[in-house]
Amino acid sequence: MNLDLQARTEPGARLVELAEKHATDAAYGAEERDRTATFPVEVLAAMQASGFLAGCVPAELGGSGVQSVHDVAVAVNRLARADPSTAIAAIMHLAPPFSLARAWREAVAGGDPEHVAGVERFLTMFGSGRAIVCLAFTEPGTTLLHPQTEAVPDGEGFRLTGRKAFATNSAVAGVVGVSAKLVLPDPEAGPVFSAFFVRRDSEGLTIRDDWDAMGMRASGSNTMVLDGCFVPAANHVPLGPWGRWGPSLLSLTLAASFPLMAAFLGIAEAARGVAVETARTRRKQPTGEPVGHLHGVQRLVAEMDVELAAARGALDRAGVAIDDYYASVPPSEETLDDLHALMAHHQCANLVVKRAAMAVVDAAMTVSGGAGYMSANPLSRLYRDVRAGPFMQPYSPVEAYEYIGRVALGLDPHPEA
Amino acid sequence: MNLDLQARTEPGARLVELAEKHATDAAYGAEERDRTATFPVEVLAAMQASGFLAGCVPAELGGSGVQSVHDVAVAVNRLARADPSTAIAAIMHLAPPFSLARAWREAVAGGDPEHVAGVERFLTMFGSGRAIVCLAFTEPGTTLLHPQTEAVPDGEGFRLTGRKAFATNSAVAGVVGVSAKLVLPDPEAGPVFSAFFVRRDSEGLTIRDDWDAMGMRASGSNTMVLDGCFVPAANHVPLGPWGRWGPSLLSLTLAASFPLMAAFLGIAEAARGVAVETARTRRKQPTGEPVGHLHGVQRLVAEMDVELAAARGALDRAGVAIDDYYASVPPSEETLDDLHALMAHHQCANLVVKRAAMAVVDAAMTVSGGAGYMSANPLSRLYRDVRAGPFMQPYSPVEAYEYIGRVALGLDPHPEA
Amino acid sequence: MNLDLQARTEPGARLVELAEKHATDAAYGAEERDRTATFPVEVLAAMQASGFLAGCVPAELGGSGVQSVHDVAVAVNRLARADPSTAIAAIMHLAPPFSLARAWREAVAGGDPEHVAGVERFLTMFGSGRAIVCLAFTEPGTTLLHPQTEAVPDGEGFRLTGRKAFATNSAVAGVVGVSAKLVLPDPEAGPVFSAFFVRRDSEGLTIRDDWDAMGMRASGSNTMVLDGCFVPAANHVPLGPWGRWGPSLLSLTLAASFPLMAAFLGIAEAARGVAVETARTRRKQPTGEPVGHLHGVQRLVAEMDVELAAARGALDRAGVAIDDYYASVPPSEETLDDLHALMAHHQCANLVVKRAAMAVVDAAMTVSGGAGYMSANPLSRLYRDVRAGPFMQPYSPVEAYEYIGRVALGLDPHPEA
Amino acid sequence: MNLDLQARTEPGARLVELAEKHATDAAYGAEERDRTATFPVEVLAAMQASGFLAGCVPAELGGSGVQSVHDVAVAVNRLARADPSTAIAAIMHLAPPFSLARAWREAVAGGDPEHVAGVERFLTMFGSGRAIVCLAFTEPGTTLLHPQTEAVPDGEGFRLTGRKAFATNSAVAGVVGVSAKLVLPDPEAGPVFSAFFVRRDSEGLTIRDDWDAMGMRASGSNTMVLDGCFVPAANHVPLGPWGRWGPSLLSLTLAASFPLMAAFLGIAEAARGVAVETARTRRKQPTGEPVGHLHGVQRLVAEMDVELAAARGALDRAGVAIDDYYASVPPSEETLDDLHALMAHHQCANLVVKRAAMAVVDAAMTVSGGAGYMSANPLSRLYRDVRAGPFMQPYSPVEAYEYIGRVALGLDPHPEA
Repeated sequence: MNLDLQARTEPGARLVELAEKHATDAAYGAEERDRTATFPVEVLAAMQASGFLAGCVPAELGGSGVQSVHDVAVAVNRLARADPSTAIAAIMHLAPPFSLARAWREAVAGGDPEHVAGVERFLTMFGSGRAIVCLAFTEPGTTLLHPQTEAVPDGEGFRLTGRKAFATNSAVAGVVGVSAKLVLPDPEAGPVFSAFFVRRDSEGLTIRDDWDAMGMRASGSNTMVLDGCFVPAANHVPLGPWGRWGPSLLSLTLAASFPLMAAFLGIAEAARGVAVETARTRRKQPTGEPVGHLHGVQRLVAEMDVELAAARGALDRAGVAIDDYYASVPPSEETLDDLHALMAHHQCANLVVKRAAMAVVDAAMTVSGGAGYMSANPLSRLYRDVRAGPFMQPYSPVEAYEYIGRVALGLDPHPEA
Repeated sequence: MNLDLQARTEPGARLVELAEKHATDAAYGAEERDRTATFPVEVLAAMQASGFLAGCVPAELGGSGVQSVHDVAVAVNRLARADPSTAIAAIMHLAPPFSLARAWREAVAGGDPEHVAGVERFLTMFGSGRAIVCLAFTEPGTTLLHPQTEAVPDGEGFRLTGRKAFATNSAVAGVVGVSAKLVLPDPEAGPVFSAFFVRRDSEGLTIRDDWDAMGMRASGSNTMVLDGCFVPAANHVPLGPWGRWGPSLLSLTLAASFPLMAAFLGIAEAARGVAVETARTRRKQPTGEPVGHLHGVQRLVAEMDVELAAARGALDRAGVAIDDYYASVPPSEETLDDLHALMAHHQCANLVVKRAAMAVVDAAMTVSGGAGYMSANPLSRLYRDVRAGPFMQPYSPVEAYEYIGRVALGLDPHPEA
Repeated sequence: MNLDLQARTEPGARLVELAEKHATDAAYGAEERDRTATFPVEVLAAMQASGFLAGCVPAELGGSGVQSVHDVAVAVNRLARADPSTAIAAIMHLAPPFSLARAWREAVAGGDPEHVAGVERFLTMFGSGRAIVCLAFTEPGTTLLHPQTEAVPDGEGFRLTGRKAFATNSAVAGVVGVSAKLVLPDPEAGPVFSAFFVRRDSEGLTIRDDWDAMGMRASGSNTMVLDGCFVPAANHVPLGPWGRWGPSLLSLTLAASFPLMAAFLGIAEAARGVAVETARTRRKQPTGEPVGHLHGVQRLVAEMDVELAAARGALDRAGVAIDDYYASVPPSEETLDDLHALMAHHQCANLVVKRAAMAVVDAAMTVSGGAGYMSANPLSRLYRDVRAGPFMQPYSPVEAYEYIGRVALGLDPHPEA
Repeated sequence: MNLDLQARTEPGARLVELAEKHATDAAYGAEERDRTATFPVEVLAAMQASGFLAGCVPAELGGSGVQSVHDVAVAVNRLARADPSTAIAAIMHLAPPFSLARAWREAVAGGDPEHVAGVERFLTMFGSGRAIVCLAFTEPGTTLLHPQTEAVPDGEGFRLTGRKAFATNSAVAGVVGVSAKLVLPDPEAGPVFSAFFVRRDSEGLTIRDDWDAMGMRASGSNTMVLDGCFVPAANHVPLGPWGRWGPSLLSLTLAASFPLMAAFLGIAEAARGVAVETARTRRKQPTGEPVGHLHGVQRLVAEMDVELAAARGALDRAGVAIDDYYASVPPSEETLDDLHALMAHHQCANLVVKRAAMAVVDAAMTVSGGAGYMSANPLSRLYRDVRAGPFMQPYSPVEAYEYIGRVALGLDPHPEA
């Protein structure tokens, strides 16, 4: 009885198959990369080569044309079982083109060649997989919606100044997507929430080599500093007013963040695998029977399976709900209300999955009877990695409950903004 | 954004539509029936008349031909939102023909007219909805697998002696399905786990009018006594060895018990509805704002939605897994291993759903601020009804964890048997 | 190994001993009073006669001189094991004199005969036990701090108009303590939070006979209506500004509300007792062994004992902390900061105890295997009674977390006020 | 309002005071020792010098005469706030003399000089603090009660062969207490559960330098190998039959293991301190207010305080219960029933404390908003350290629930033995 999440679409199934192949590579060396905090350079290179990283790019533009966030999540899930750091590195690259591809399809359908060309440029630049992409939207001391990094117009482009953190992939990225508060000269115009695509070798961009965390140690999630860094106008994407969700930003964030939770499910599944193997094979005196014969171990294994049933189910349904919405509503007709309802549902699934993932790894650790606490045991890495879950954007548990509750009650989700 | 469970098949969708109509009727008088512990006689009569109760009977035999336990669960879910007692009464009737219909389809495909006729007889007797059916498989002081009610051959039939409890529908049932330990004269033969279909007016069958419980008060779940009650041989269905799961018994139990959990999801959804309505409309001094403006209330609503995401997801996936198995394996080829894996997964979903349902009703009660504690408030009934969840067959939490854990570890699920 | 809470002081030990005697009486008829929602008139009468209700009145004034809220809690705990409704009825009477007695002792030490006489009058009126006292501080649609019941000066007294709810004991109370918003003629003066002691037979006071709740059915917690009800000036106690905690009101609320949680511990202990007895004596086929031999039952019993260890420990420590503070600081020197710290600690214990109590009763219900769900089983009553816990004043879980967190962080506990 | 655990006895208070001084030293360098997995050699040396390690040795023999396991726990608690590895290293030394001192006092009272001398010898050898002591009772692949390390008589002593794990302090210990299965030549005699005190420089004893775990990295909890290691007869203490609790072994284990849980409480308190400091000082845009103004943060802080109230309360009460028993019953009159009841209560407190400690550290991590996940942040160490809790002897959660449940139900606690 295979209870794994399964792709729902044909292109998705091919992406998952590719993910399973890359997972085999990623597993190799994962422990060593964790110990040395080394980015999985070769694995990502292989993903570029195989086309995996271009999974969400339309087939017409050389990608695999996956149109299901659910299936992207399933692919991420497979990678994470082998190496969680690799999984979150890949998703940062895989997910952003998803929304661009939707915009491209709408533009093509609408017959607007200029718009089509504009979107294609971005899809080519950072979706194709030619360069590794890093999304630098997170900053210390502020929310996702309120980047303090400032962009000011300067000639044929903009100059960016600020500081980013938790920029997964930054270790090797060729292009960095940076969120900023664009301040326009017009005193009437409010600040704009903008994304800028910055080449790694741009002057004024410093990517630190300072990622040293408890877990996800191979993800290269360094800090970066922008000091008057110049970005040409063509690399600018305005995403609505600064400090509030606009539909574009919310839809983009929804699609890009949804698959992340599947990485934590993958961690849990890996831990459950270790625990069951231990329970079946590790023998204990005085009976000499496998520890799986102990009622306490059976109970823990059952609790793992109960948690996994909840996590897989919640993830599955939320993915289908988002896919269904995207399939039925073109980007330009998405509404804030619909997107908040979907985001709230995504956040519910997110809490279910991450709570469950942490509970499963904890139970696996208990089953291990101390062995899992040793550095050499994979459980000790999974235990450190899984704790990254609650910090993921856009809502940590600090904000998620309030957000979900307010959306459910029909209140403004962010009254403070 | 409608997050309700939805039917996956065409006949299932029609069943759910019917369920929604009957729910409207069931809602009327639910409070009064709870107070007076009165069975919803008219509602069940309407379900007989509409064909709802024959939902799982093949269309060729006059039923609706629903072949999805998932969709049966969705129908039960809709009923439970209106009246949980009615929902569990209906499921006891709706579910048993499911397995018979599978057997019938296989028999028809196999071209064995005698077998076909035999199964048809049962489908007609208790699937058609002509008589209300009651399943009396539960006994005090023993497990489902070890009925102490004894059947002994006597002429053209059997005589049954024993005592049953929690026999939902017994208040009005025309036919009672009774499990028993059939003891054969052959000293070599072990006892047989048998089901007998007993007419209400059979001599030696006494149905007490003694159902007086904290909740599910309108479900007519009386005790019954069999005192040498005669049952003709034609009404006997052997289901394997007594005291162990055989494939038939396990498959039947799986299909018949799965939809029950959806009743508890429905209770939770109803409670969530009351809580959200309260949060939006009940105002509180000193601010005079709706209580939904309180952070504590927003938090509770969020927790309800998180629990519901887990419950719906787990139920959905488990239902699909069971449907997929039944669609791909004919009854005669089902294996104990497969069925145990499915039952363990069902039990995982069951624990998720019932834990969640209890947590949601509890949170709704807290949101109500004391109002929900009053007898006149529907929450007080939902709070009592939802607690029936963990007692449902075949596994209460007392046994479920051990069962799930042992199946996961490849151990004999019932070593004591 | 007796793990029960024990009194820490000599007078407290005598109070607990009396409580145990009254508990024996209270147990008798508890089921019947629950079914019929009848107040335990005779039990309260016996408590008046024995002096139990005057436990916190100074010995010099004819009481037992208990000066420990911890020990009052222990006494309540013993009563609740026998009959939770009786326990909360008794505490409403027993607790209020506690703060008055402290004021009296300080007044005596200060040698102010007029003040002494004033306090003595109140102690005699409602502490002595001559009349049953009811505290009507709760109103629908507002917080404890913001009573909407209005008092206006009128001649030699005040006229009160408003509506109270959950007024435990009101069924038989001779004197009712009513909180109100006193509006003074002076336009400069803000409203005052006042308590008024109103005789039952006062004109304009209507006590409804409308208590019909899911649990605590014998507690007579009716609604009451004040319609221009006149109260003489001597029966008025100003407790600080309306809408904010003043030290007097906070200290009074702390002392009076603390022992209530012990009632819910008592419910849990009673449920645990039923479950252990069931586990030891109820036998189940096929083994015929007591159900306590099932691992699932052993686990549930263990979880009950774990919860009880947390609940008893948290209650014990919080009681000692409050006692220690009261022993070292006279009423007039209490500070808001200290009292908030104690109240926050009390609220932590309160959440621990009530969560634990609900978990224990739920586990006991599961151990009972369905038997506990029947109306005739005491568990079904305990299950309904225990759910009253979270609604108790001054903080339900809706507000408690915010209050505790804000106090811990040094923020204003009630920013909205 | 100081809610810290406090010593209950005079010698205990002095021990706690010393602990607080050593904690100041231990804090210094804790991060570095964690990174490099270095044992706190100087801190332990200072504890030898100050007499701290001889805290439980009778004053008459040069110790501090602490007779309260509760107070030992409080001392451990203070150390753990500064450095958990140091705390568990110290407790391994501090606790074992506790039971010896009880035996010594009984022997002195009984006037048996030979017995007195025998016990004094042990108290001097490993209680005095002259040598650091390591207790090597844990082995991989068996329970505490069933050591597989074998001792066989050889001339004036015994030869030991086996393998030990998690031997905290072994990095520097001068004397190692080893549990073993003593097999006597008499074929009638069953194996004996024995403790042997082995000098570090004994031939045949190899202490590996292999402690490399996720947390508690400075505790030097290496594996050790005994290969026919000779131990003189005078260093042997028989503790009852092998494979079953005898009163001596159970009492010794109770006293020695109880204080350990306080280390995990200390970790939680340290994490809570970091979180509250963060919440008060870390400011976040767009409001620029401290993050403690976020409702989600207030909620998390409240949950921490609720957990701490439960943990401190449960620990406090269990410590008092054990102290009271030891104060009223001399070692030779202790009964297995009493000791099991106490051990079950200890295990309840243990589960409360360790669940709470993990929950508090997790909540603190969430409050930190990602900062705590960085290696340089103390929370990341506390998160790794706190997970050692559930593995501590004698019962991990795998066995604890079954043990507690069976003791509560009056069943043999270890039916398999």
